[in-house]
Amino acid sequence: MDYEAFFTRELDTLRDDGRYRIFAELERRRGAFPQARCFNHEGVERVTVWCSNDYLGMGQHPAVLDAMHETLDRCGAGAGGTRNISGTTSAHCELEAELADLHGKEAALLFTSGYVSNWAALGTLAARLPDCVVLSDACNHASMIEGIRHSRAERHVFAHSDPEDLNRRLADIDPARPKLVAFESVYSMDGDIAPIAEILDVCEAHGAMSYIDEVHAVGLYGPRGGGIAEREGLMDRITVIEGTLGKAFGVMGGYIAASAALCDFVRSFASGFIFTTALPPALAAGATASIRHLKASNAEREAHRERVAQVRRRLDAIGIPTLDNPSHIIPVMVGDAKKCKRISDWLMEQHGIYVQPINYPTVPVGTERLRLTPSPVHSDGDIDRLVRGLSEIWSMCELARRDMAA
Amino acid sequence: MDYEAFFTRELDTLRDDGRYRIFAELERRRGAFPQARCFNHEGVERVTVWCSNDYLGMGQHPAVLDAMHETLDRCGAGAGGTRNISGTTSAHCELEAELADLHGKEAALLFTSGYVSNWAALGTLAARLPDCVVLSDACNHASMIEGIRHSRAERHVFAHSDPEDLNRRLADIDPARPKLVAFESVYSMDGDIAPIAEILDVCEAHGAMSYIDEVHAVGLYGPRGGGIAEREGLMDRITVIEGTLGKAFGVMGGYIAASAALCDFVRSFASGFIFTTALPPALAAGATASIRHLKASNAEREAHRERVAQVRRRLDAIGIPTLDNPSHIIPVMVGDAKKCKRISDWLMEQHGIYVQPINYPTVPVGTERLRLTPSPVHSDGDIDRLVRGLSEIWSMCELARRDMAA
Ligand SMILES: Cc1ncc(COP(=O)(O)O)c(C=O)c1O
Ligand SMILES: Cc1ncc(COP(=O)(O)O)c(C=O)c1O
Repeated sequence: MDYEAFFTRELDTLRDDGRYRIFAELERRRGAFPQARCFNHEGVERVTVWCSNDYLGMGQHPAVLDAMHETLDRCGAGAGGTRNISGTTSAHCELEAELADLHGKEAALLFTSGYVSNWAALGTLAARLPDCVVLSDACNHASMIEGIRHSRAERHVFAHSDPEDLNRRLADIDPARPKLVAFESVYSMDGDIAPIAEILDVCEAHGAMSYIDEVHAVGLYGPRGGGIAEREGLMDRITVIEGTLGKAFGVMGGYIAASAALCDFVRSFASGFIFTTALPPALAAGATASIRHLKASNAEREAHRERVAQVRRRLDAIGIPTLDNPSHIIPVMVGDAKKCKRISDWLMEQHGIYVQPINYPTVPVGTERLRLTPSPVHSDGDIDRLVRGLSEIWSMCELARRDMAA
Repeated sequence: MDYEAFFTRELDTLRDDGRYRIFAELERRRGAFPQARCFNHEGVERVTVWCSNDYLGMGQHPAVLDAMHETLDRCGAGAGGTRNISGTTSAHCELEAELADLHGKEAALLFTSGYVSNWAALGTLAARLPDCVVLSDACNHASMIEGIRHSRAERHVFAHSDPEDLNRRLADIDPARPKLVAFESVYSMDGDIAPIAEILDVCEAHGAMSYIDEVHAVGLYGPRGGGIAEREGLMDRITVIEGTLGKAFGVMGGYIAASAALCDFVRSFASGFIFTTALPPALAAGATASIRHLKASNAEREAHRERVAQVRRRLDAIGIPTLDNPSHIIPVMVGDAKKCKRISDWLMEQHGIYVQPINYPTVPVGTERLRLTPSPVHSDGDIDRLVRGLSEIWSMCELARRDMAA
């Protein structure tokens, strides 16, 4: 077996398919978000980032940075150990208390990322609940799919955001068996929002646990930033709420919030929680500061909504085809991997606008897109330039426009 | 199904077995390592940490902290996206170049932790190499085991650090099939070191890829801190070297170093790399500073060796039973979960000495231990107090001593 030749061949296939990824090398400028320096596009030095998941710009918020600087100085860089072996600090415990409070749950449990929290929590619950059946939304994120797969529990995929299909599938399963229904609130690529109440009705009717990924909603929705479930008054009906500290909260890390017994169970049995170095205390402190700020302040959420609405309005006005949805994510549909990459390159090179093309496997083939994430840090001028750039390239390439907005 | 009752019952079983984990809540004091504040032991406020994996105290090194402060101020808190979608910064690229250089490889690839690097890299290689067989050392870390398990590739466990057993098993496998041999250099709980050259001889004889976890060796061994393989001049014979940024380097994160094609392959296909927020730029910058420092400076490694030797000598002199090994890890063997926890509690409460008891499943039942990790930041006084404390409790509890050192 010639391993190198195999790797090279597989990479060539990706290139031929237009799916080979080239990462933009950037450096966001603190205090000047969404502006960034760009290092690997010739002739492009300053760019405006239009695809960050630091949705509110909290990554440059003074309260977050002050907490991080202060904790770095007080406690040093890393945690120095796993949570069990010298790696638990008061910064971790405070953050877990803050998260439990955010979601109105008895407890919360921190992981090194949202990915790991989904993988480890779903993997552990589904593997350890005897004879568990998992019902997984057809559009669930890779981290949930891998966690469920890892558990080797029986798994049924239900139609995306379809409580009736879920109901039918649950009705077919022995009522005595443990059941776990896993879904998201805001789906990150289409920006659609799950019918949470209806899904919970079905879960409750069948005695199933509910597990919701609010990664793209925490900090952004609900009066205190608790997510869509908070906004809709549903948090207490959900068994497990999962979230990230790396998107709207602007730092890094993931968590679940649930009953004390469930969190303690995952804490005690999840390999991905136990056998890894804890988050640096400075990250935990930064996340706590971010959550606290967004619990008390609605200004960022309001500005966010306003920016999103304005970008949508402007794109509609010139017929740029976007996917309609009720969230903050604006998918500009292109439908072809190579075209998507070319548009993205052109925006970068001609306008200093950075929007990463989103291709398979992140989205299905034929639905390739530019995924815009307007944020309170985008100025009117930024929006003008974005709209002008998109309009120009749409005309140049004779891309389809949709009927101009009414 | 009463889920809460199930969780509670399982937790009660852990408690009955003496395996329920209570995390010490600490706060290391930057500039005063290994001293820490303790928050959840009544009457104990200041403790000396004897079980950190920040082996060299790099977590408080000014070069590391300066780089982190500076990058926080320049770039903000989090990366704001996955590596592909706005999350790659020059800090990530520099760190990957630094790691490739450290291990004399063409390339390196960063992950959010050592756990994720093992899980994702092994999982991807073993799943995607057609019909791959994995040979896994019997004592491999949980993260490797889970990665291999996740791949669903055929797996054979070879006897711990036994090239002959590995050879026999490889000889039984179709020579045409891709083969991947996964092992560690320093095993973290016993502190033994693998016979790397002999294992590589066997791999080469059978055309197998070699994958070594140097998590407990990078920064600590070799003239530039490249690990045991560097010390023994073997890096170029190993296919994949995996390491962490969270132990001797004092920050957080994980990586592989390998050929450019292999790294690019894992970059392109590993779910655990693709679908997660990138490390904060400040962590990447801190890790780069740490690696650079330890490439150029041997002072920390020399002081480390001297401290380890001194602690070993002192414990030998009073007959405290330790496991012999050629590394920096000193396992003080107790052999009983409850006793181990009682000793640890007593050291904390009577002497302000924090050593976490290590129980199943981290180590096999009957081999419960205190795992000491002396470091350049431990003073002579710290060592005196540790030796006195252990001697006292060993006498009080009439624990077995081994024959006093010759
Ligand atoms: C729906 C969803 N869940 C989980 C994750 C993982 O979270 P994190 O980036 O914190 O690992 C992501 C994206 O990264 C996501 O889109
Ligand atoms: C042998 C080994 N590999 C990998 C890891 C995981 O590394 P990290 O702590 O960076 O996740 C650990 C411990 O945490 C380990 O002991």
